Amino acid sequence: MALSSVSRVLNDHPDVSERMRKRVLAAIEELGYEPNLLAAGLRRGNSRTVGFIVSDLHNPLFASIVTAAQRELNRRSYAAVVTTSDGEAARDAEMAGVLRRRRVDALVVSLADETKDRVIRELGRFEGPVVLLDRKVEGLSNASIVETDHDGGMNQAARHLLALGHRRIALLTGPLQVHPSVRRVEAFRRAYAEHGLAVPEELIRPAGFAPEIGEKLTAEMLRSPSPPTALIAGGNQLLTGVLRSLRRLGLGAGKDIALVSCDDVPLSELHEPPITVIDRDVARIGEVAARLALERIEDPACPPRRVVLPTSLVLRGSTPRL
Amino acid sequence: MALSSVSRVLNDHPDVSERMRKRVLAAIEELGYEPNLLAAGLRRGNSRTVGFIVSDLHNPLFASIVTAAQRELNRRSYAAVVTTSDGEAARDAEMAGVLRRRRVDALVVSLADETKDRVIRELGRFEGPVVLLDRKVEGLSNASIVETDHDGGMNQAARHLLALGHRRIALLTGPLQVHPSVRRVEAFRRAYAEHGLAVPEELIRPAGFAPEIGEKLTAEMLRSPSPPTALIAGGNQLLTGVLRSLRRLGLGAGKDIALVSCDDVPLSELHEPPITVIDRDVARIGEVAARLALERIEDPACPPRRVVLPTSLVLRGSTPRL
Repeated sequence: MALSSVSRVLNDHPDVSERMRKRVLAAIEELGYEPNLLAAGLRRGNSRTVGFIVSDLHNPLFASIVTAAQRELNRRSYAAVVTTSDGEAARDAEMAGVLRRRRVDALVVSLADETKDRVIRELGRFEGPVVLLDRKVEGLSNASIVETDHDGGMNQAARHLLALGHRRIALLTGPLQVHPSVRRVEAFRRAYAEHGLAVPEELIRPAGFAPEIGEKLTAEMLRSPSPPTALIAGGNQLLTGVLRSLRRLGLGAGKDIALVSCDDVPLSELHEPPITVIDRDVARIGEVAARLALERIEDPACPPRRVVLPTSLVLRGSTPRL
Repeated sequence: MALSSVSRVLNDHPDVSERMRKRVLAAIEELGYEPNLLAAGLRRGNSRTVGFIVSDLHNPLFASIVTAAQRELNRRSYAAVVTTSDGEAARDAEMAGVLRRRRVDALVVSLADETKDRVIRELGRFEGPVVLLDRKVEGLSNASIVETDHDGGMNQAARHLLALGHRRIALLTGPLQVHPSVRRVEAFRRAYAEHGLAVPEELIRPAGFAPEIGEKLTAEMLRSPSPPTALIAGGNQLLTGVLRSLRRLGLGAGKDIALVSCDDVPLSELHEPPITVIDRDVARIGEVAARLALERIEDPACPPRRVVLPTSLVLRGSTPRL
């Protein structure tokens, strides 16, 4: 029997047939090993590593979450290793597999798409605790969740713009395959309902988080016969695209169009005028995620928990009184 | 013999005594194993993972490098796992150890400090290829290197400001414990020498890359009796701090002080006026790093290589004619 086969089985490599797996385990047993214990020991014990899957390393949001989580993990002598799906749903499952085979003790995951069967199966196969960042995965009951109150934040932002007199408010946000986008669109609609107004459905664009999408949709809407007077960008990467589009059209945020963004980053803070944001304590998300992972690594009997963190609306020059 | 000891030895855990290691290996041999091959197989074979150590996940630069490297690796069915030293030199060595024990096939490393013995030892212990990003590590002859022509870029920027008539140019850049900072300071001095001018030594501040440092030093210099008329920020995180400081002092980039930054990010692009930058193809750095790692994973006889990538000066409104 080739040692490479033994290694592949113990490494839990995907390209091992069930027949080969049994043969290897039988051979190891013959040699006097307790293969399950050994494999489990190699796979789980003393790894003291927590694996992260984020959808976009360019997003300073994830950088802040991972950095804060790592500080918390380091305090308890754990390390963080990070992978990215690069926004591709297929890669969520792939990276979960990579981290499982690299024997991390827990997974902290911000999925590109929470509705895909393959990643749900892959996360289900993982033996340690799973913590979901701002995601709701049907059929994965055993995961802890750190959520943001996107509902409250978006509702407050939309009500603020409506109170300023805006009626044609555009909403750019991520795809409806992730939970925060669904919640934001609902909360946006509710704000209009609360004001007794009809929602401008054509201005709701849950298309994606990338700058290019923000740039394209902003240009499209602002060139339409009935353009929006206000715009909410559902993420800092979208904001980059929105600002590129405004510059190209020669329009100023806070002057020609009111602008709200989500999450405070240097670009929103240092823009002239500074940009109103739905803010949240991003470092806190990382800290809580690390704690939710650690509590279940250290006590596997500990049930999964769901923590919802608040948002606040920071009013700045990009949303002036009309 | 406890299976946990076996596991620790095969995992190459740091808390295993030499005596224990020998006992375990002898016992495994007795059972008919070829421990070195098995351990090597477990440690190296089929991992198909490349480990990254970056100093700051908040820096969009590293995000671009890692994302591009990952795309290149994925094309060859390799995955990327990323760790961060969080800018702490002690954590460079720690993360190299974590990745070595997680059995990555290669390391791609941007050290927080290239002068520390511990990390040099740790990188020397790593069996696979090491690729250094913009670092020069004495005593580590067996690493490939992807460098940027910081020398050319900084010299060009300083000469541009001198040609515009600036004489008091401030230079904020990272600590002298990393190669790029050393090269930039040299190139900055050379530009003054080429113009036959004395260098304003008190304006050269190689202190660190964090926004807080940029903010503090900018305020300090601009409040001095003889403030700079131009400033070069040696990184996009420093730029954030510089812009915070200018806002606080009520000064405008390109109006009250000329400003050059390094690496183009949304903040420099979308600032009003847009900010002149020493630019480089950051994605290319990631691609090249991935290729340098892969060529030596796939052919261990392949010698390490050093690749130097160019910069270009992108002139914008923040450096107007005086």
